[in-house]
Amino acid sequence: MSFRRLQEFIDQKNSRVVVGLDPTDALIPDNILKSAKSKLDAYWSFCAGIIDAVCDVVPAVKPQAAFFERLGPEGFAVLDKLAYYAKLRGLYVILDCKRGDIGSTAQAYAEAYLQDNSSYDAITVNGFLGSDGIIPFRDVARENDKGVFVLVKTSNPSSAELQDLIADNKTIYSHMAELILKLNADDTDPDYPTLGAVVGATNPAQLSHLRGDMPNAMFLIPGYGAQGGKAEDAARGFINGGKSAIVNSSRAIIGAWKAQNTFDYRAAAWNAAIKMTADINAALPLS
Amino acid sequence: MSFRRLQEFIDQKNSRVVVGLDPTDALIPDNILKSAKSKLDAYWSFCAGIIDAVCDVVPAVKPQAAFFERLGPEGFAVLDKLAYYAKLRGLYVILDCKRGDIGSTAQAYAEAYLQDNSSYDAITVNGFLGSDGIIPFRDVARENDKGVFVLVKTSNPSSAELQDLIADNKTIYSHMAELILKLNADDTDPDYPTLGAVVGATNPAQLSHLRGDMPNAMFLIPGYGAQGGKAEDAARGFINGGKSAIVNSSRAIIGAWKAQNTFDYRAAAWNAAIKMTADINAALPLS
Repeated sequence: MSFRRLQEFIDQKNSRVVVGLDPTDALIPDNILKSAKSKLDAYWSFCAGIIDAVCDVVPAVKPQAAFFERLGPEGFAVLDKLAYYAKLRGLYVILDCKRGDIGSTAQAYAEAYLQDNSSYDAITVNGFLGSDGIIPFRDVARENDKGVFVLVKTSNPSSAELQDLIADNKTIYSHMAELILKLNADDTDPDYPTLGAVVGATNPAQLSHLRGDMPNAMFLIPGYGAQGGKAEDAARGFINGGKSAIVNSSRAIIGAWKAQNTFDYRAAAWNAAIKMTADINAALPLS
Repeated sequence: MSFRRLQEFIDQKNSRVVVGLDPTDALIPDNILKSAKSKLDAYWSFCAGIIDAVCDVVPAVKPQAAFFERLGPEGFAVLDKLAYYAKLRGLYVILDCKRGDIGSTAQAYAEAYLQDNSSYDAITVNGFLGSDGIIPFRDVARENDKGVFVLVKTSNPSSAELQDLIADNKTIYSHMAELILKLNADDTDPDYPTLGAVVGATNPAQLSHLRGDMPNAMFLIPGYGAQGGKAEDAARGFINGGKSAIVNSSRAIIGAWKAQNTFDYRAAAWNAAIKMTADINAALPLS
């Protein structure tokens, strides 16, 4: 589904939170790990439980491909099944796979995840290879009414090493933003173009700046919570009183049971998702 | 296996060619597509045949993850099986997956492909996220005596859009090269450090420049042949009369049967691999 549909989901739930599904053994309660038939089963059961818990209070989930790829080919099958399940539960599904390549290879990745019959609504893409590496994803997404979030300014400390370098009086991340703006220029839905942007909340000034550079692109904002981004930082990524952005939290929601000292990880995740939703909503600009 | 082992393979075969396994329906002869039990089976059969054909004349193969991911979870199983088969046939196996992420996610990708028991000897990594996104791959590779090729300057036309921008009097690709040099500085094998570089043959001046920037890193050189790079261009990536680099060719080898107008795709691939090996060897610098 397009980013316009994502916005509808956001409006319906009045939540701007996407729950990152980044499962690891350490985040799965012991009773699940012990009672499951296999590790794959434990991952499925845990993540499906998270989806059950949060599907009424958030608009979207973001499974992280790496944690499923680590489980081998069967891990991919679990990932696909979870995406399908999340879709059935009324969630927008963003696959965080940060794929990036060119030509027929980029086309193959796009076809792997953005086909019409795929359960993924959007994926993340690394555009370091330039427009050759973004256009095939954009075109397949357009054709199937899906979305693509291109990495623009990531939330990790060392993102500055390359992304913050200044060339022609502009940072590299601003060059990437310009590229996205250009590649979105002929989009048939200018308010919700197919290419969105990943912009971290950890540097609020940069987030504000990029919001100006890409006034209409949907933003996927990591870095809230554990990485140091606050609600008022993330709020800079929104426009029109709270539109066109979604803020990710992974471990603070799926691992909330640890901090809350309970094995009821579903209730803990539900609580954490509601609390984060309120935190972000309270920080939104009024217009 | 480490890049030192890759060099031994190169020396043994006296070939600096890596055969890219980028299978598509169009590259697989009709008789295989028709006689195979399934598409997965056709992909397996075709790629295993290529491995059989070239394993005595080249040191390495480079399966491209995207073309297997497109086939779903079972495609990954075929990829893993092919890597194992290539290993048994005495080939060094480079998984071209261009993964890139940070922290525990990068760690998960590294564990997915660079574990000790994995059939992959090396993978490609996109380092746009900075050292946070490279170190986890490097560390897992070091631990298991494997290699990592970081994208430095790719061979596609639009790579210039971001990679050629100049910041602090240096291109972005040179900044990436510096980062790799720095992250290799404490390597226990300074002649064959764990981090190598992907540098295209399509811009020979840049390739020469980067060879100077990273005197010891193993280079994986795409862009020969169809993309326009000639043997004398690719030759600029070698040191010491033909060491520390390997040149990729995909379609020109695995699809050689089309140009040669035969269904014997194995013989065609074998011929093409021998011809390319001779072409590269003839262009090598004498010292």
